Amino acid sequence: MEAAWITPAWYVACLSEELTPGAPLARTLLGTPVVLFRDGAGKAGALLDRCAHRNVPLSLGRVADGVLQCGYHGWRYDGDGTCVAVPGLCGEGGRQARAVPAFAAREQDGFVWVFGAPNETPTRAPFAIPAPGEGATVVRRTVDMEGPLLAVLENALDVPHTAFLHKGLFRGNGGKHRVTARLSRLPDGLQAEYVGEPRPGGLAAKILSPSGGVVTHFDRFLLPSIAQVEYRLGTDAHFISHSICTPLDASRTRIHAVFSFRTRLPGWLVRPFLEPVALRIFEQDAVIVKAQADAVRRFGGEKFTSTAVDVLGLQIARLLKGGEPDPGWTRDLELEV
Amino acid sequence: MEAAWITPAWYVACLSEELTPGAPLARTLLGTPVVLFRDGAGKAGALLDRCAHRNVPLSLGRVADGVLQCGYHGWRYDGDGTCVAVPGLCGEGGRQARAVPAFAAREQDGFVWVFGAPNETPTRAPFAIPAPGEGATVVRRTVDMEGPLLAVLENALDVPHTAFLHKGLFRGNGGKHRVTARLSRLPDGLQAEYVGEPRPGGLAAKILSPSGGVVTHFDRFLLPSIAQVEYRLGTDAHFISHSICTPLDASRTRIHAVFSFRTRLPGWLVRPFLEPVALRIFEQDAVIVKAQADAVRRFGGEKFTSTAVDVLGLQIARLLKGGEPDPGWTRDLELEV
Amino acid sequence: MEAAWITPAWYVACLSEELTPGAPLARTLLGTPVVLFRDGAGKAGALLDRCAHRNVPLSLGRVADGVLQCGYHGWRYDGDGTCVAVPGLCGEGGRQARAVPAFAAREQDGFVWVFGAPNETPTRAPFAIPAPGEGATVVRRTVDMEGPLLAVLENALDVPHTAFLHKGLFRGNGGKHRVTARLSRLPDGLQAEYVGEPRPGGLAAKILSPSGGVVTHFDRFLLPSIAQVEYRLGTDAHFISHSICTPLDASRTRIHAVFSFRTRLPGWLVRPFLEPVALRIFEQDAVIVKAQADAVRRFGGEKFTSTAVDVLGLQIARLLKGGEPDPGWTRDLELEV
Repeated sequence: MEAAWITPAWYVACLSEELTPGAPLARTLLGTPVVLFRDGAGKAGALLDRCAHRNVPLSLGRVADGVLQCGYHGWRYDGDGTCVAVPGLCGEGGRQARAVPAFAAREQDGFVWVFGAPNETPTRAPFAIPAPGEGATVVRRTVDMEGPLLAVLENALDVPHTAFLHKGLFRGNGGKHRVTARLSRLPDGLQAEYVGEPRPGGLAAKILSPSGGVVTHFDRFLLPSIAQVEYRLGTDAHFISHSICTPLDASRTRIHAVFSFRTRLPGWLVRPFLEPVALRIFEQDAVIVKAQADAVRRFGGEKFTSTAVDVLGLQIARLLKGGEPDPGWTRDLELEV
Repeated sequence: MEAAWITPAWYVACLSEELTPGAPLARTLLGTPVVLFRDGAGKAGALLDRCAHRNVPLSLGRVADGVLQCGYHGWRYDGDGTCVAVPGLCGEGGRQARAVPAFAAREQDGFVWVFGAPNETPTRAPFAIPAPGEGATVVRRTVDMEGPLLAVLENALDVPHTAFLHKGLFRGNGGKHRVTARLSRLPDGLQAEYVGEPRPGGLAAKILSPSGGVVTHFDRFLLPSIAQVEYRLGTDAHFISHSICTPLDASRTRIHAVFSFRTRLPGWLVRPFLEPVALRIFEQDAVIVKAQADAVRRFGGEKFTSTAVDVLGLQIARLLKGGEPDPGWTRDLELEV
Repeated sequence: MEAAWITPAWYVACLSEELTPGAPLARTLLGTPVVLFRDGAGKAGALLDRCAHRNVPLSLGRVADGVLQCGYHGWRYDGDGTCVAVPGLCGEGGRQARAVPAFAAREQDGFVWVFGAPNETPTRAPFAIPAPGEGATVVRRTVDMEGPLLAVLENALDVPHTAFLHKGLFRGNGGKHRVTARLSRLPDGLQAEYVGEPRPGGLAAKILSPSGGVVTHFDRFLLPSIAQVEYRLGTDAHFISHSICTPLDASRTRIHAVFSFRTRLPGWLVRPFLEPVALRIFEQDAVIVKAQADAVRRFGGEKFTSTAVDVLGLQIARLLKGGEPDPGWTRDLELEV
């Protein structure tokens, strides 16, 4: 699964709390080294992590007087990437050549979002995480996967593997119930609605909804890099997870996961049971995504075969390349879960 | 010495005892990842170690109902590489596209042999190790060398280095006795018979034949990858070693060594003296073969100079490329040992 | 800053004391593996570290009878690279093809110098370190930098970074005093003389000259790879350092540093204060030079911007490519220190 992403789009660069006022923070986004820092007013800025002078990473410097100062010769940059001081130099000619590329940065929902294309003014806001319903419990986790964005997104939105890889945790043995996947195009992504699905047999579902009931299940891909999974179990249990992905580079993806759930039982009681199950599922996925990426690398490229039950992965690939889903993809199809 | 091997040929993939019924076994052969497993009847199978679906190594899965099941989505393969189940899928179309390449596998002499070319039916059996003579003691060892097949084979069948690299163990100081090397083509390889050779002066020969006597010494290369060294010392001592080589990839070679010896003394008495000497010789060879490979890599390729006493290496290279020995190679030549 | 050096020139390969009579010594110079050894008379020799036969590093062998013997088959080479013995071989034909390239070697000032171009007779002697003046104390150190020669030389002869990177050690806060840099071409290099410079504010200068006074300061680049920094502080303190650089390969540089100083106070009293300061400055430079090299590698090449206060680096680059300084470079210019 080749590396692909949309560059002019918002990605999470770090948690707001990770970016402390005094200290520049080095991050890699879309394969590009970026330095984050807060100016004198606390506003987050993001520059290419390379001093225009002798190319030392600016993240090795410090924040001084609200601007970022390189640790080698002391060149200073503001949040727009403008070089505002060259120590030792008499005169100020050639300032333009001394600028570094700047990335739009915005804080929202506790994350610092950075726009992937430098020196561009975004026309849209970053993805807004839906507000949790009343009484919902929210849990956040950061997980790294050693695989490309596409493999991580496909994994996050794939149903059939859950019965094998997460056997006992998420689903039991597969192939017992025939359900319908209703596939549709969203304004900003893709949706698979599963109709006729029984409550999953694994531990996670038992914790969320001990009494069972009718299941409503949506898997959604939202551009540029978000996997959203929503379950309603009976009338009382609601579970929605967002895997907000950041492609660090062609072979590593960071997931900022935000889970929200509400059940008949109070959240403080459910959370200690649900959280280790969710983390174990992430661990199992991380192992398999890495194994897949290693194998693709070792064989010098991917050679995939797909079937009708690979409902979202191939279409996500098309959207990440700026295209549309396969003609005829929007339909109902039968599969066994 | 560039990497070279004959692909459509049998190589040892593992010991029979290493391939346990429940567990798939990952191996690399000729640079290719292969998964070995035993079917319900215990028969060894070998497939390309890559699921046709999302390319996860099949060796990370398990053997279920006598077939190999991928650990990601649960696709199942039999020993011929046919995909016999896709969980979740309703219908069975497109099975052919879902097959993985299979390698012929056969058990013989305690080894699992695998044919290097996939989806081919071999017309010959693997190399049969000659039965040890009556009263002979047989010792087996597996040794890895970090060098290409050709360098390992040349090393195993080279006489002059023994007086330097293995000084005191195998031969003493070189250049004392003038002997004749009688070079000939075998149906499946090459032979050097050494005529007029004194008993080697090192520790190994003293253990094998304390009383000395006439020496008969053959070095043989047998296609595709076997170095056979045979010594008769006087009338009673007989020693024959097989270095059955498996090129793991272009820079690593595994040797499955089978030594057989018979002396005037009982094998249980000789073995404790002979075995550490043989292992020490292998260690010394492994160090030098790795040093050679590292240097060739560092200089970006080999630049060898040869003399008349390099009797077998260059000709093995020709056979490994499917050619014949140099015209005029079959002859007698003088050297000092 | 791309890797560049002059090949037909003398470089320090090791300290004289590192080359002991019995043991060959492996070194990498200008990206080339070289083996050093002493012949029967103690004279240093330098050969390409690759046996002509099977390419095993000669440095894994030993010195026998005053010549270098390969550890694999025992081929022997003298200091000119001539192969003087092939064990086992009857006859001596083809000796020329069996030679290995030899490098001119000379001992001077406690170093073994090797000429970078093989099989050439140098027409000049290695750089002669000026004799320290009467009463001077000399300290020597070997420091490795993980960066290319050019980055190391520029760093060693750059003034503006000292106020930032070495703040408090070498200079205080920059930009306080306007001085003149008088730039000139030397027969074998480049010179920047700083006129009107106050005594540097850092710890090093305070140790050298507690009482201050008029400062005379020269930075000099001497071909092929020497950075010379000279300070006179007042009438009594004199400090001169030589960073004699050896490009190990395109990304690593070894500095053989020779400091000489004389102050009003005795050397034995000053040295314990000065030495840790000098070593700390080297450490800081090594960190930044490595960070620069890593960033250039990560970005796939350098993208530097320069200003008038980068007085020597760009011109050194021109000389290392066999060229002359920029027309008009020889002049006076103002900067702040």
